[in-house]
Amino acid sequence: MRLAIDAMGGDHAPDEIVRGTLQASEKYPDLQLTLIGEEKRIRAILGQQIPSNISVVHTSEAITADDEPVRAVRRKKEASLTVAAQMVKEGKADGFVSAGNTGALMAAGLLVIGRLEGIERPALATVWPTFDGRGVLVLDVGANMDADPGHLLQYAVMGNLYAKYVLSVEMPRVGLLNVGAEPGKGNTLTKETYPIFENQNFHFVGNVEAREILYGICDVVVCDGFVGNVMLKLIEGMGLGMLDELKEVFMANAVAKLAAFTLKPGLRKFKRKFDYSEYGGAPLLGVNGVCIKAHGSSNARAFEMAIHQGRQFLLHGVLDQIRSGVKGDETR
Amino acid sequence: MRLAIDAMGGDHAPDEIVRGTLQASEKYPDLQLTLIGEEKRIRAILGQQIPSNISVVHTSEAITADDEPVRAVRRKKEASLTVAAQMVKEGKADGFVSAGNTGALMAAGLLVIGRLEGIERPALATVWPTFDGRGVLVLDVGANMDADPGHLLQYAVMGNLYAKYVLSVEMPRVGLLNVGAEPGKGNTLTKETYPIFENQNFHFVGNVEAREILYGICDVVVCDGFVGNVMLKLIEGMGLGMLDELKEVFMANAVAKLAAFTLKPGLRKFKRKFDYSEYGGAPLLGVNGVCIKAHGSSNARAFEMAIHQGRQFLLHGVLDQIRSGVKGDETR
Repeated sequence: MRLAIDAMGGDHAPDEIVRGTLQASEKYPDLQLTLIGEEKRIRAILGQQIPSNISVVHTSEAITADDEPVRAVRRKKEASLTVAAQMVKEGKADGFVSAGNTGALMAAGLLVIGRLEGIERPALATVWPTFDGRGVLVLDVGANMDADPGHLLQYAVMGNLYAKYVLSVEMPRVGLLNVGAEPGKGNTLTKETYPIFENQNFHFVGNVEAREILYGICDVVVCDGFVGNVMLKLIEGMGLGMLDELKEVFMANAVAKLAAFTLKPGLRKFKRKFDYSEYGGAPLLGVNGVCIKAHGSSNARAFEMAIHQGRQFLLHGVLDQIRSGVKGDETR
Repeated sequence: MRLAIDAMGGDHAPDEIVRGTLQASEKYPDLQLTLIGEEKRIRAILGQQIPSNISVVHTSEAITADDEPVRAVRRKKEASLTVAAQMVKEGKADGFVSAGNTGALMAAGLLVIGRLEGIERPALATVWPTFDGRGVLVLDVGANMDADPGHLLQYAVMGNLYAKYVLSVEMPRVGLLNVGAEPGKGNTLTKETYPIFENQNFHFVGNVEAREILYGICDVVVCDGFVGNVMLKLIEGMGLGMLDELKEVFMANAVAKLAAFTLKPGLRKFKRKFDYSEYGGAPLLGVNGVCIKAHGSSNARAFEMAIHQGRQFLLHGVLDQIRSGVKGDETR
């Protein structure tokens, strides 16, 4: 199993990316990992003894957070991300992992690697923390802004397979994001989608409300990319903002500081529950190769987790599963 | 200024509703308040000396949280909420306030009172807490599931006027909810809406992301009712869930409990910041009368605030403002 690694993407690149790759190379000797980026810097972090399953491909360009995604992928042919996607396209790698610009990753997946046979619109999926600690896979969170019921059906099929094989959920409960539980609720899109979801090969649990998905009412939530992206940003902003507010409470005076100190273990656990990096990478599902977006602030551990997800993806042949899963819907 | 009060709606009805109405009657002698509901219970709470600007209309029916909204409004003609809306329809009141079933309130506004001249779709607006403490008006949060750019324009016009005259924001900054700040971002709806918003009589600050609205980037956020409702439920669920998690941290053991005790004033402030009842009622904008939904868990103070909002609405002639504001758009 061969994964191309964008060594230059992410807030802590290349240091934490290279370290995470080293850790993954030790844990998973069945992986062939190719680090793409500034060779000198990468080798300095790798050290003298490079594991036999790691190789380095030099490139000096990089896509930054400020780059306009589509243009960057089209013009920066030598950027580490573009080269990684190109390796997948040319069959030199089975997939790639990057902690860089999300938009550029989606553009690279769509424009360089291309869609999987039968898939109309790929979807970006992320695992969100839930209060029961299990987490929930939500898709689409921004690959495709306007969706029709057929797109949502493909998201459901892909999300179900990803949850089953990569996240190891035995029989994923798939929910349709809506404004109420009753079948007749929602906008035109969700009203039309509901009956289509009822007779499929996945375990459809009906409409789910945004409030409930945080409490683990299902394992996979399907929604259009606009709503998914809005929710993702709202939840991140709310989590960060509340933590900041709490910090203020704890730093108010000497007594508060002391009190906060005694609460530290509990608060650390609390904070970790809302830490996205604990929940691994976000796959772009529906492209013709494994394509994992690690969190932008990934440390070595988070990046290793993202590589692990890519490995699970390959190990269980999820691409083939999706290909036949989507065909199954067409013949029904 | 005459307001009909649904005395039977809300978690703490009729006690807190009647108390809130009493408080408002004292503060605002220019209001005529009609309490609608079980007369005996209402009079028991009112006591012997009933202020001259309060009257009671007896009705024995009520709409509950479990009632299907449209059916309830159509069939329960004697329900306190329906009677309140009917008084507005018949010109016996200028508006009504209810802490009951949100769906039923919207149905009563739409079916009994009816739309304001020139308004295509009324919108439900709510004020959300922001980390800077100012709050932000978001609409539509669920009156109308499928919106077109023309609807969003009317929401913007109405939201702008409401923020200006009822919430006393001098020059409200109106933002269009989107997945990125650049004009070309978004789904078909927001892409088509952006250029329409650019040359209007309100202060359009461009696209705003969900993350930013929590930090006070604008005073009014415009979105379709599906997305707005999803956000509302997500933010409520997240706030409640995080508070529960914190409670667990503080109750873990005796030391934690002691620490939490010393932090109490700060934590109370923290909690209040995310308490929706502090932010008053939600107006259904675009119906031919004042129509305010108080929070379901309203205590007397919160209900008094909702009545205050209804008064502001009337005092500044917001209905007429909206009528001419919407006409202004049509002639441009």
